[in-house]
Amino acid sequence: MKCTVCGEPARINAPRHNSKFCERHFLRFVFRQVWRTIEEYRMFTHRDTLLLGVSGGKDSMTAWNILAEQGYTVHAVHIDMGFGDYSRRSEEIVRTFAAARDLALSVQTFEELMGFTFQHALQIHRRRACALCGTVRRYFLNRLARDLGCTVVVTGHNLDDETATLLGNVLHWQMGYLERQYPVLEAEAGLLRKVKPLVKLTDEETGWYVKLRNIDTVSGTCPYSRGATSPVYKDIMGEIEKRMIGIKADFYFNYLNRMREQLSSGGSSRADKNYFCPECGYRTLKGELCFVCSLKRPAARGSDGSSLPAD
Amino acid sequence: MKCTVCGEPARINAPRHNSKFCERHFLRFVFRQVWRTIEEYRMFTHRDTLLLGVSGGKDSMTAWNILAEQGYTVHAVHIDMGFGDYSRRSEEIVRTFAAARDLALSVQTFEELMGFTFQHALQIHRRRACALCGTVRRYFLNRLARDLGCTVVVTGHNLDDETATLLGNVLHWQMGYLERQYPVLEAEAGLLRKVKPLVKLTDEETGWYVKLRNIDTVSGTCPYSRGATSPVYKDIMGEIEKRMIGIKADFYFNYLNRMREQLSSGGSSRADKNYFCPECGYRTLKGELCFVCSLKRPAARGSDGSSLPAD
Repeated sequence: MKCTVCGEPARINAPRHNSKFCERHFLRFVFRQVWRTIEEYRMFTHRDTLLLGVSGGKDSMTAWNILAEQGYTVHAVHIDMGFGDYSRRSEEIVRTFAAARDLALSVQTFEELMGFTFQHALQIHRRRACALCGTVRRYFLNRLARDLGCTVVVTGHNLDDETATLLGNVLHWQMGYLERQYPVLEAEAGLLRKVKPLVKLTDEETGWYVKLRNIDTVSGTCPYSRGATSPVYKDIMGEIEKRMIGIKADFYFNYLNRMREQLSSGGSSRADKNYFCPECGYRTLKGELCFVCSLKRPAARGSDGSSLPAD
Repeated sequence: MKCTVCGEPARINAPRHNSKFCERHFLRFVFRQVWRTIEEYRMFTHRDTLLLGVSGGKDSMTAWNILAEQGYTVHAVHIDMGFGDYSRRSEEIVRTFAAARDLALSVQTFEELMGFTFQHALQIHRRRACALCGTVRRYFLNRLARDLGCTVVVTGHNLDDETATLLGNVLHWQMGYLERQYPVLEAEAGLLRKVKPLVKLTDEETGWYVKLRNIDTVSGTCPYSRGATSPVYKDIMGEIEKRMIGIKADFYFNYLNRMREQLSSGGSSRADKNYFCPECGYRTLKGELCFVCSLKRPAARGSDGSSLPAD
């Protein structure tokens, strides 16, 4: 197996690009995919201050390393969810990475941010763990970015994440989510611009990247991921890709290029109407307290949370 | 396992309907699903003369049996594709079924209709076997229906066929096909109304139906089906359904009810523009000879067919 670029022995096979790469040219390929994504979707420039959510997983570590090496101003934020050993390992990984490279990192715990533990939040609100975790993290990444004076929120979602989400949204014809699925969500009142520069890379590719760059990442799966639907869609997309190489990227990018606009009725608005949480000013769906503020309300704690708005 | 309807021992499990059925109530269930589909989509009435394409497979035999038993005027047409033993068995099955019940049946061979064999057509035109077979059959079912004075063309496509097609069309974002995917296609100049009354039944359900009704069907797979993409999508939808019971029907019917209209730019037009074949009057895409007439053109026979329009 020879590198498609230089003809030297290749280590990594990338059938969907009809290419094989030696280590050096694979790393160049990864960097170029990210760079092209940032350019193509005009995600940010060197004048922006980026807030990057870092979990300690391979995707956010890949994004962090590339953005820092390229001289972007990045403020990394790690939210410690309090998931026992898994969270402790994650925190150690991001702290060690930042310290070794002298990078800006804030670590916040769910408990400090919310006033109670994730386990308690799960009890008072019957949302699935992944949905609860995701909603709270999105909320605080946006708020911390505002507090820190950042201009853009960056996340490490990759092609596999996005196609799994797209498949789920299509199978259930979730029109609202379909309209909003895009690598860039523009800033709106209460919400910063949000971007996903890794959407041209797969799980396998970010996995190779951190391995070749000797970047430590948290291994294993989150202890709360049991019953999550996203891995099911990832598995299915993996099955489809095995039988039809390249379809994953076609499915996603053809959606972005040809299909999405036809679906959008009112552009890429991130909420149906302009309602804001009376407590914190965050966008809401119904003009009531936002999900996070409802969760914090003393009345909600200890109740079954059934009256909480489904933000 | 007890029948959800009568409490007698059940034989058939229908988890997506949260039901179990004894034989009698399963047959009633199948009949009702077909009846509801005909009513809901206003497919046809007893005043119509139906042309039903019958292959000898479980789906078209199910449709034939139900429509004949319900007293519809059905003219069945079997096109013998000349696929050796497979075609001989298919023909025998439809002839025996029709003779035993005194039903109207025309058998036509591909060779008589076209003037040459399917194998020859495959050689002169590099279309895949399934696409070639499907295009030619759709063409002649429509033409024979017109010649016989029928008002509606009926096919035996079931829920599994439709969801497999929908998944393929979505993965490739085939906008034109997506717009036209509906259980009823209205009549237009050159094309009769076309309907699919089995879209609420699965492969498994029509399989049980013919088994319980002792209806003989052709077994095994078509000798030309190797490399076909539809079974791949069926497998994948099967995998998804195994993990999320009921999603197949949700995916398809939510598409029909919520999504399809949003996609259609110009209603359910079956061709982009009003072009007609100068030879036979069939709808074409470009105002040239239709696919079947091109195939029949003496010049095309023996050539590689590369200049033929892709109707």
